[in-house]
Amino acid sequence: MKAIEGGITAPKGFRAAGVAAGIKPGSTKRDCALLVSDAPGSVAGMFTTNVLKAPPVSWCEQVCSRGEAQAVFVNSGNANACTGEQGIADAKTMAAQVGAGLELAAEQVCVCSTGVIGVLLPMERIAAGVTGCIEALSTEGSPDAAEAIMTTDTVRKEMAVEVALPSGTIRLGAIAKGSGMIMPNMATMICVLTTDAQVSSDILDGLLRNAVEVSFNRICVDNDMSTSDTVLCLANGASSLVVASPEDQAAFGDALTGVCQEMARELVLDGEGATKFVEIVVEGAQSDDEAKSVARAIATSQLCKTAFFGQDPNWGRFACAAGYAGVTFAPEDLCIWLDDIQIVADGMAAEYLEEDAAAVMAKPSFSLRVAIGKGKGSTVYWTSDLSHDYVSINADYRS
Amino acid sequence: MKAIEGGITAPKGFRAAGVAAGIKPGSTKRDCALLVSDAPGSVAGMFTTNVLKAPPVSWCEQVCSRGEAQAVFVNSGNANACTGEQGIADAKTMAAQVGAGLELAAEQVCVCSTGVIGVLLPMERIAAGVTGCIEALSTEGSPDAAEAIMTTDTVRKEMAVEVALPSGTIRLGAIAKGSGMIMPNMATMICVLTTDAQVSSDILDGLLRNAVEVSFNRICVDNDMSTSDTVLCLANGASSLVVASPEDQAAFGDALTGVCQEMARELVLDGEGATKFVEIVVEGAQSDDEAKSVARAIATSQLCKTAFFGQDPNWGRFACAAGYAGVTFAPEDLCIWLDDIQIVADGMAAEYLEEDAAAVMAKPSFSLRVAIGKGKGSTVYWTSDLSHDYVSINADYRS
Repeated sequence: MKAIEGGITAPKGFRAAGVAAGIKPGSTKRDCALLVSDAPGSVAGMFTTNVLKAPPVSWCEQVCSRGEAQAVFVNSGNANACTGEQGIADAKTMAAQVGAGLELAAEQVCVCSTGVIGVLLPMERIAAGVTGCIEALSTEGSPDAAEAIMTTDTVRKEMAVEVALPSGTIRLGAIAKGSGMIMPNMATMICVLTTDAQVSSDILDGLLRNAVEVSFNRICVDNDMSTSDTVLCLANGASSLVVASPEDQAAFGDALTGVCQEMARELVLDGEGATKFVEIVVEGAQSDDEAKSVARAIATSQLCKTAFFGQDPNWGRFACAAGYAGVTFAPEDLCIWLDDIQIVADGMAAEYLEEDAAAVMAKPSFSLRVAIGKGKGSTVYWTSDLSHDYVSINADYRS
Repeated sequence: MKAIEGGITAPKGFRAAGVAAGIKPGSTKRDCALLVSDAPGSVAGMFTTNVLKAPPVSWCEQVCSRGEAQAVFVNSGNANACTGEQGIADAKTMAAQVGAGLELAAEQVCVCSTGVIGVLLPMERIAAGVTGCIEALSTEGSPDAAEAIMTTDTVRKEMAVEVALPSGTIRLGAIAKGSGMIMPNMATMICVLTTDAQVSSDILDGLLRNAVEVSFNRICVDNDMSTSDTVLCLANGASSLVVASPEDQAAFGDALTGVCQEMARELVLDGEGATKFVEIVVEGAQSDDEAKSVARAIATSQLCKTAFFGQDPNWGRFACAAGYAGVTFAPEDLCIWLDDIQIVADGMAAEYLEEDAAAVMAKPSFSLRVAIGKGKGSTVYWTSDLSHDYVSINADYRS
């Protein structure tokens, strides 16, 4: 797997665009993005489990259940969530407008909306955004599209890789957004993936589920799950390489997981107000799920997150969070490390120099490893800290 | 039920004290508290469900399982948690020292420790604290005891009431501490209750469970449950009034619940960095438990809590949190009010003036009412906001 330029238009047969249509109130920033494949392809998606899932999410679920799509339109600045019957109609209209402009059925078009909740979409501006995007479509359009889906994100998130499968070479591309309302254990934020491999929608769906489980479902910025979380993957087959053999599926799945994990890491690195990137490793659990529960308790703990921000190796908070994760373990089996400094041994303070532990936490990125001595279950989880800037961003900004 | 002076020594036959013994590092503040009943009484307790429950918690559980006690000793500044075999021995030694000084068996003495995790208790200082407390015991000792159990608390929490039961008048007193590591749905923090009613430990246990369920289990400051959470109630029978008839039990239970709810409210009001007290009311759920899940999701959401701090009637966040609470409901049934201003009707923005909603949130205390249109289940839940000061307190202070 080799990194290449080009984002979601790196795979063959994709064009993209991002334009400003005034959806973000009082802003001239890009807020409409379009991705189009030259030919219809397979599509798979994973979505928020929020009861109040937004109309565009329901629309995408329908498209993905049929398994075929040719375009994805995304607007930022307005989530089209909690908008009732009109919101449902607006999502459909948006897909129809994109379809009309591209000579596709509306049912071939996925639509996503992200931004403020509870306000009707400004449909005239959306129509202008659709037209503008179609005019701007280009095989170099990925950066503009990646920029257009940003909300509180401070950096654009896109990547592409070339992957040598046993049967030949394919490409995978991705763009993503999201730096708040990021809650683990559920589908998250918005990420659009492309590949020129030919993959049936069933296989794609299974591989995407596996990839999301160990990437976007293993991150945390705050403890809130949005109404619009969406991960979509379009496979247009433009490389003519068919992913079907078990070997190709395994290699393709690994690459898809790698790309999802990299995008997930980037979301946490750009977490609202984040000054730290912490990799939480939990080992010695009965199962991977158990390990995930322990990791999530630490990753979402306000006290652990403020300790990360304060660069304070206050291991009592890490131990405490592990202790209320809903997982039983013998207290005397608990061990904790900051990078390679063991700070807890046999459930008590290990022998270490406070300054060594503090030095690890002073780094912008470090690992916190927790072992609970039960079995072979393990997990890796990524989280950010809780800083003054997080409070400022969310107390002052109507997102 | 009438408020009276005197805290935990308001009920007849109790004495208390609070002294400084240097347990809080580098501080001359009071950090040891003792409560003693003139005669043995019934005792009931509720405790943390954290796997890493501290040795004093285990000790208290044993005392409560026997149902009889005569004294409670509490130190702040050190939680005696994650301290291994030595910690277990130290908790027992502490109880024995109190017992020796009062001519009681160690098994008659509950001990609680709160403060930093993972450091062995300074047992010489504890011994001095025990001696100091015994010397200072007084029927006016409640304020000193209430002060001695504080950690990051900014105000002392104590109260007492006189209750007219059908059979006669009794008194109930309470002190409590806790303003961080306050997580709902589990036993919480430290609260010591006294009464001069005569109540069997079985009845007391049942009534305490009911009271805690709708008081300390309905509050949230952050999402962390401590290793030391303890609620204890001592009933010494000094009033000679026996709580046994169903009528007396009901009246006594109501009073106990009222006292627990008031102490719970005070914990939230004094929540770390708190500038707002928000009463979350959820109605129209299938069951009270379902209502509690919805209330808890909102009460613990970082985004809702920063919106409270920012005084921003950003109802999308409240709706969103309700939507991921794990409770199904029809989106079009969702209604939300800030005090008496309806901001969400039928799952969408209601007609209201933004300035009216903002005016409610500008108040130091207000209610957020959520209805989900399913049934008669309801709950009341209390939470604070997430402020810059919360981050400062927890990034800068090793608690």
